[in-house]
Amino acid sequence: MFAAIELDQASQVPLYRQLFLSLKEMIRSGKLRVGERLPATRELAGMLGLNRATVTAAYELLAAEGLLRGHVGRGSFVAASGQPPSLAWDQILPPLEPAPAPPYAPGAQISFASSRPCEQLFPIEELRRAAEQVLGRPEILTVLQLGSPAGYRPLRHYLWERARSQGAARPGDDLIITSGCQQALDLLQRVLVRPGDTVLVEDPVYPGLKNLFLRAGAHLVGVPVGAQGLDLDELSSLLNRHKPRLIVVTPNFQNPTGATLPEAARQGLLRLARSARTILIENDIYGDLRYDGRPEPLLKQLDESGDTVLLGSFSKIAFPGLRVGWILGPKPLLARLTEAKQFCDLHTDQFSQALLWRFAETGSLAAHLERVRAAGAARLHALLAAVEKHFPYETFFTRPQGGMNLWVRLPEPLDAAELLARAQREGVSYLPGRYFEVSRRHPGALRLSFAGLAPENIREGVEILGRIFTGEFQQARARDADEPAPALV
Amino acid sequence: MFAAIELDQASQVPLYRQLFLSLKEMIRSGKLRVGERLPATRELAGMLGLNRATVTAAYELLAAEGLLRGHVGRGSFVAASGQPPSLAWDQILPPLEPAPAPPYAPGAQISFASSRPCEQLFPIEELRRAAEQVLGRPEILTVLQLGSPAGYRPLRHYLWERARSQGAARPGDDLIITSGCQQALDLLQRVLVRPGDTVLVEDPVYPGLKNLFLRAGAHLVGVPVGAQGLDLDELSSLLNRHKPRLIVVTPNFQNPTGATLPEAARQGLLRLARSARTILIENDIYGDLRYDGRPEPLLKQLDESGDTVLLGSFSKIAFPGLRVGWILGPKPLLARLTEAKQFCDLHTDQFSQALLWRFAETGSLAAHLERVRAAGAARLHALLAAVEKHFPYETFFTRPQGGMNLWVRLPEPLDAAELLARAQREGVSYLPGRYFEVSRRHPGALRLSFAGLAPENIREGVEILGRIFTGEFQQARARDADEPAPALV
Repeated sequence: MFAAIELDQASQVPLYRQLFLSLKEMIRSGKLRVGERLPATRELAGMLGLNRATVTAAYELLAAEGLLRGHVGRGSFVAASGQPPSLAWDQILPPLEPAPAPPYAPGAQISFASSRPCEQLFPIEELRRAAEQVLGRPEILTVLQLGSPAGYRPLRHYLWERARSQGAARPGDDLIITSGCQQALDLLQRVLVRPGDTVLVEDPVYPGLKNLFLRAGAHLVGVPVGAQGLDLDELSSLLNRHKPRLIVVTPNFQNPTGATLPEAARQGLLRLARSARTILIENDIYGDLRYDGRPEPLLKQLDESGDTVLLGSFSKIAFPGLRVGWILGPKPLLARLTEAKQFCDLHTDQFSQALLWRFAETGSLAAHLERVRAAGAARLHALLAAVEKHFPYETFFTRPQGGMNLWVRLPEPLDAAELLARAQREGVSYLPGRYFEVSRRHPGALRLSFAGLAPENIREGVEILGRIFTGEFQQARARDADEPAPALV
Repeated sequence: MFAAIELDQASQVPLYRQLFLSLKEMIRSGKLRVGERLPATRELAGMLGLNRATVTAAYELLAAEGLLRGHVGRGSFVAASGQPPSLAWDQILPPLEPAPAPPYAPGAQISFASSRPCEQLFPIEELRRAAEQVLGRPEILTVLQLGSPAGYRPLRHYLWERARSQGAARPGDDLIITSGCQQALDLLQRVLVRPGDTVLVEDPVYPGLKNLFLRAGAHLVGVPVGAQGLDLDELSSLLNRHKPRLIVVTPNFQNPTGATLPEAARQGLLRLARSARTILIENDIYGDLRYDGRPEPLLKQLDESGDTVLLGSFSKIAFPGLRVGWILGPKPLLARLTEAKQFCDLHTDQFSQALLWRFAETGSLAAHLERVRAAGAARLHALLAAVEKHFPYETFFTRPQGGMNLWVRLPEPLDAAELLARAQREGVSYLPGRYFEVSRRHPGALRLSFAGLAPENIREGVEILGRIFTGEFQQARARDADEPAPALV
């Protein structure tokens, strides 16, 4: 390799410099690698017919650039690759947000932190039958082949017919499959929201919705949610003040409050949204999980204009690990969402679409939902009774009739975020309210997600939390009692 | 309902106007629905103790606003809901791009239009075994439950170990699962590209890449790709001129050209990208589909800095209907991509991740790949021979050693887009070059995707195309020959 170095005696560039440049190029190009030994100066001088001083001068230039290092008695070695250093990723990347993800305590035995179903209830045998059906028919080749951005046809057809028979789907509507409800929200954000646009959301709200729209540069405004759902007076004034591009609501068993909007308020919401000419997104992923009371009609069913956009998903009613949801709404919007979907991920996984289609179509989903609702009722009632019994008397909490979540506001001065560490040390976890807040702070707020826990665990967990909260509250009261007593009159 | 209308005799608002406003509100609120009959004026006047003229005046105001319509001899009916009209979706939405999706001819018997595997080769029996394994173990509960944005742990671990043993994964790297390679590109766009940023891509290039970055507001610059892959001289000057944020390349069997970059050029590409401090994305979804020749090392293997970001996928080597791909790259970047992934769709479908993990881990994927490569070789050779035989002699075409695509440039003045309709009438389809072009137009260019077609179909399709192209080319020549002959000398 070294013998092949060609130097030009006639050049104006001195020989030592020519040699330096040749060796440097060999290092830069990788012909000479880091750690490789170069010939001794005497040896290379002999090879190339040069003075030894010429070679020494070239080596010194290399050493000056940090490319060569000498070891006494061992020779000279390539010390660096001559390549520019690696990219400084942390400087060229946008800052990483402080984890918007919730602080799940890995060690907590009883976790109220995740709004998800109980895996012990998953009907594996029925799913296995669905898988056998999918794999046993010639259509499996279509399922495994590249599909359509709008979704797997049999599942789309099934969901469309169901929505039509419920009076939710109208002639001007279309339906597409998404990779869960999170992607539905992301597609809507992509198509509808430009930086600076105002978006109205419930306050408190699901963090995955809040963070998604904030990242898209939206101006997020929270509409307060009470035990009876959205506050329509506030909504009316916010609509007038902000003229929002769109509003996203969860009228059934909202996450995190569990609140449900009564029918009259649904009519009012529709009127307000239409008068403001705002796009109304109805997220109904919890609607099928009603344990008590009478179902309310969907906004999409009530809305004669057909403009409401309805989101659904199998995640809460079947298996969150299978990412399949859908969007039902006006055709012009759905055409754009389908286009965006293709850019995002071509299409949703078709094996899972086919699995869930068979699972739903054969009645397994309905049977599973019966069991899930029975279990959910027992869990919800256990939770309500335990909170009533163990939490401080002054605690406010919602009384949902379904879903997966209960919203609690501890009395002042309790701080749910501060108390979490103590709860986790005793093996219980939950999410403090700050993960859900948009415009309003309630330090005492927290969410208890109950669907994934057996009633006995719910009772045990709430008892532990109750002990912590009540103890802390009594201490705070005792501190207050140390204050000088008011004058007796 | 009407008897309950309350009017204020003492008000300054005239009674007919009060009645008008009351009735209007009953219509707007839905208490009175479209098509409902109002009482006759005499009847309502009696009910409310008013003059009949007062009621008539109120009805006339309603009629003037289009809310009431009279039918002679039948009475007055609510004519409209008083609600604002539906949203004008086509006005409030961004324009729908003219379908970037390719014009698949539904009727074409022989379609060279889609770069996808042949479903007849799908190993259903092996997939069924993998499904049984996934469904038969207790871990199925984890698979079906909510998962991690970074991916299903066993699959991540499997892919990481494979990449490590190949010298592609380094200690500073991480690996996450995506919903196919399209989502990998989308996540990179989200994290790395701001509107106005310059992105270098191959020209011609996969349309799903081009359109994604264009939609994100990137300034797209094409680097020409020839039979030997990327033109490095052009790349060097484009890097200097544009200082791009990133460059996306497909060194193995590029889509659409099928070209592969030789090792020396890979080294050169790495040096150029590093000197320009540009982020280098290596898309290797076709790399395992080599039918002839010796494999080239990955950029990610050659890159000692570790900065290269490598994309992989199961779509081309197994089942496109299962949407599972991955990204291997420096940890700081992967942390941001994981965060973006959570906003996009929470995580990739876990049943498919588990299925593909079993399918790969048990050796079924390797066995399948053997069969796919044997079939691919037969198809590629059939295509090359047929194009050589049937297309006009002056045609340029690439000679890939793997992948799914061949790039053809018909001699002037042939226009591949114009000739497509004729080909489709004869039952053959392909994609004209314009779907793939970035900065350079070649009207004669087209892509032939061969992996999905049996050799006999390839031969038949190319024969038909050859007849059309050759016939058209001869006619064009004959027209040229009609021109006045040059002077004889």
